[in-house]
Amino acid sequence: MIEEPVGEDTGTVDQLMKNALSAFGAYKKISPVKRAGFLESIAAEIEKIKDRLVILAKEETHLPEARLYGEIARTSGQLRLFAALLKEGSWVEAVIDTSDPQRTPPKPDIRKMLVPVGPVIVFGASNFPFAFSTAGGDTASALAAGCSVVIKGHSAHAQTSSLVYAAIRAAIDLTGMPAYTVQHVLGSGATTGKELVQHPFSSAVGFTGSFTGGRALMGYSNQREIPIPVFAEMSSINPVVLFPDSLEKNGASLASALIASITLGVGQFCTNPGILLGIKGDALTAFTNVMAREIQKTIPQKMLHSGIHSSYTKGIAEMLGQKGLSVIGQSGESAGSLEGLPVVAKVSGNDFLKNDHFAEEVFGPFSLLVECQDKAQLIAVLRHLKGQLTTTLMATEKDIREFGDVIELQQGLAGRIILNNVPTGVEVCAAMVHGGPYPATSDARFTSVGTSAVKRWVRPVSFQNFSDSMLPEALKNDNPSGIMRIVNNIHTRAALH
Amino acid sequence: MIEEPVGEDTGTVDQLMKNALSAFGAYKKISPVKRAGFLESIAAEIEKIKDRLVILAKEETHLPEARLYGEIARTSGQLRLFAALLKEGSWVEAVIDTSDPQRTPPKPDIRKMLVPVGPVIVFGASNFPFAFSTAGGDTASALAAGCSVVIKGHSAHAQTSSLVYAAIRAAIDLTGMPAYTVQHVLGSGATTGKELVQHPFSSAVGFTGSFTGGRALMGYSNQREIPIPVFAEMSSINPVVLFPDSLEKNGASLASALIASITLGVGQFCTNPGILLGIKGDALTAFTNVMAREIQKTIPQKMLHSGIHSSYTKGIAEMLGQKGLSVIGQSGESAGSLEGLPVVAKVSGNDFLKNDHFAEEVFGPFSLLVECQDKAQLIAVLRHLKGQLTTTLMATEKDIREFGDVIELQQGLAGRIILNNVPTGVEVCAAMVHGGPYPATSDARFTSVGTSAVKRWVRPVSFQNFSDSMLPEALKNDNPSGIMRIVNNIHTRAALH
Repeated sequence: MIEEPVGEDTGTVDQLMKNALSAFGAYKKISPVKRAGFLESIAAEIEKIKDRLVILAKEETHLPEARLYGEIARTSGQLRLFAALLKEGSWVEAVIDTSDPQRTPPKPDIRKMLVPVGPVIVFGASNFPFAFSTAGGDTASALAAGCSVVIKGHSAHAQTSSLVYAAIRAAIDLTGMPAYTVQHVLGSGATTGKELVQHPFSSAVGFTGSFTGGRALMGYSNQREIPIPVFAEMSSINPVVLFPDSLEKNGASLASALIASITLGVGQFCTNPGILLGIKGDALTAFTNVMAREIQKTIPQKMLHSGIHSSYTKGIAEMLGQKGLSVIGQSGESAGSLEGLPVVAKVSGNDFLKNDHFAEEVFGPFSLLVECQDKAQLIAVLRHLKGQLTTTLMATEKDIREFGDVIELQQGLAGRIILNNVPTGVEVCAAMVHGGPYPATSDARFTSVGTSAVKRWVRPVSFQNFSDSMLPEALKNDNPSGIMRIVNNIHTRAALH
Repeated sequence: MIEEPVGEDTGTVDQLMKNALSAFGAYKKISPVKRAGFLESIAAEIEKIKDRLVILAKEETHLPEARLYGEIARTSGQLRLFAALLKEGSWVEAVIDTSDPQRTPPKPDIRKMLVPVGPVIVFGASNFPFAFSTAGGDTASALAAGCSVVIKGHSAHAQTSSLVYAAIRAAIDLTGMPAYTVQHVLGSGATTGKELVQHPFSSAVGFTGSFTGGRALMGYSNQREIPIPVFAEMSSINPVVLFPDSLEKNGASLASALIASITLGVGQFCTNPGILLGIKGDALTAFTNVMAREIQKTIPQKMLHSGIHSSYTKGIAEMLGQKGLSVIGQSGESAGSLEGLPVVAKVSGNDFLKNDHFAEEVFGPFSLLVECQDKAQLIAVLRHLKGQLTTTLMATEKDIREFGDVIELQQGLAGRIILNNVPTGVEVCAAMVHGGPYPATSDARFTSVGTSAVKRWVRPVSFQNFSDSMLPEALKNDNPSGIMRIVNNIHTRAALH
């Protein structure tokens, strides 16, 4: 049992990174099955102290208990999912092209697989004290890949972060991992964070947070002599298109579902539906009226920390001050200290297209309905939007038949396209893409949620003309783990003979 | 039959990119099998005019006929390899997680696959007028992915580039592809190239060339409002480590093979072995003596163009002027106009470590032997090197047993690790990684040669809760093309039921 948070690793960034590099050298050689055991052990150690973690996190983040217990379950589930991925083993993308000595010129034997890149810097996110923080998806996927990790804990939940780190340390000891496989520091993003990203031993960066924060990290990397990949999940307003037939048939239930999604977790989700698009008409008016009634019933709740709260208050005030905007409705109760007031507003498509501010993210329980004149304007509004994590179609079969061009446009906009579900709720699974075109993320080619998140921390290496004994296990002739490989362009789990 | 080169597309960069975007909209919807037919048609059209292409290219690049015919075969082979990849279809990485409505909360159906990113800018390379130029690997892989392509032809072989483009245009007509699926411009990299990379409709960039050129393109992208991926293959000296037992047993044949590799194609290959590392001793001295004898027999040949020739002449002069360097030998004939003089030189490990200039690439028939004091210094020299495309081990079983730490270090250095083969000769196959840590390339996670090169032009998209009829073919329940998919974490070609 863990008695006290280990807290923060001390020492300079240079010392931390030297430790991380030396741990990487040892950790990358540990077998995938043992790495899986380490991930499972972290999950178990976190679960052992979940009650203490929830007490701390509730104090630090103002998130309700049920959500925090749920998030811990998600976090340990994520760690176990990566453990299962390691045990199965095929994720390394082993590809083998055997030799042909008779060919002119002779064809060499070439085999490739993914290998870990080196020490990874993970920034804890404020809005998910567990699932996107210290032992969250970035750390779990980097450890699965075979990388050592240095975590910059988020100051808004420093105690929680330190206690989660204590669980990781316990798992390191229990499973005999190299001492510095994971390290944890607090401190400022602009100083400590920058130093970490710019240290020559850092190989990649994982971040979930604001556009400003993500852009800063991208800049730090670009200033390096050797730039490194920065995976920043930054900003998204997750457009929801309300198609006419769907509005007509399901308007009231859509309004209720969307108000619930907009205000879930005080709107502090990356996939919060921040913008709703519809075509003017009676059905949209009826939908708006239900939204007004539903938002009135919501209750303001405390936001994560004073920084987010003041950003929200400022963001709402700025948004409401834009020409053409009118409020549809807001919570019937006024907001107390640190509380975010749920608000929905609307603007015409004409006004939206004239003012880029309407497409800015207001992080919190706010959403903007854009009333488009017609289909042409709906298309113009969609074209006006930047890259997104998600986009949703609320559409019937009839809508789908009639609005193929709109739907195609939506598919170019985001990493996840959703039909008749709300965008909040990001399933942790192999098929998930939690990513999307810039500025939703810094790199649309990767996801930060689901098993494919491991692909952020690896690069492919070819081995040419190696003898079997020198090859990594995944590339050996007899395929000891029975992983799926591509051998001479054929998918197979068979051994080579 | 094509009678005249179509030459260059005219019009502003803005017009070209508008055409490219509109072509992308149509081309991405064309079935993979039809795209495969298009690639095969390009290959056939190129082969039809291969004699004319060789005459032009010989004139423009000074490369010998046999090499040019070989390169055309490589180019058409590459196009057919991508066609085969499209017909097989599994490359889209289809992943399906089916729904579980009984779970709390209900688990949605989520399916993902790779989709093309948009118009791609391809820069022709000077050193491969066919295989890395107009219809080379970048173009072939981007077209395979479903992207439209705008080619910036290399001015050093503008006529050849234009004639290859004529073959592509013929294939566009023959197979009924959208008119602007491929476009071709000449002009300067610093003006036209920059404009292309910075146009808002450009989605990604492929480049093979100098470090300076690649860095410039990376900078152009970073200046964009929305940065785009730049895949630049830039600079590599491809370290070859000559282990003691191998030197002792095979020194003479190694020296001959390496001199042949160093001078192949006047040393104008990205994988030219520009640096050789060995430990001081009689075997290394004997090896050096054979090198001196072998290089003496080589004949200076014309380099690709005057720019490369003057860079080589300047680079050699600068390198030979460095303190501590001594010449091992050079061609017995003096170099004529535009010819590159083959030279090998040596330096002690001590001097190498004192002067970063020794690790710079001299593009041409030059290589530098670093004589290390002992194993510790060999390790120090390897640690001193930047990221590479390849690194080679010339090693016996005994060397491999004794130098595990050196070999491990080499594996962290490059995209391809070669045992007892020369690094020149890049096999076009699924297992090839022609890439490597910066500054060898801008992005070590990808390859520019082999079928995986297609992965540079795509991003994953998830479809949540889509009905079967709305899903792309690769994600439909009945798996009409029978591709390999991951369904609920199991690899399978089976349909869903």
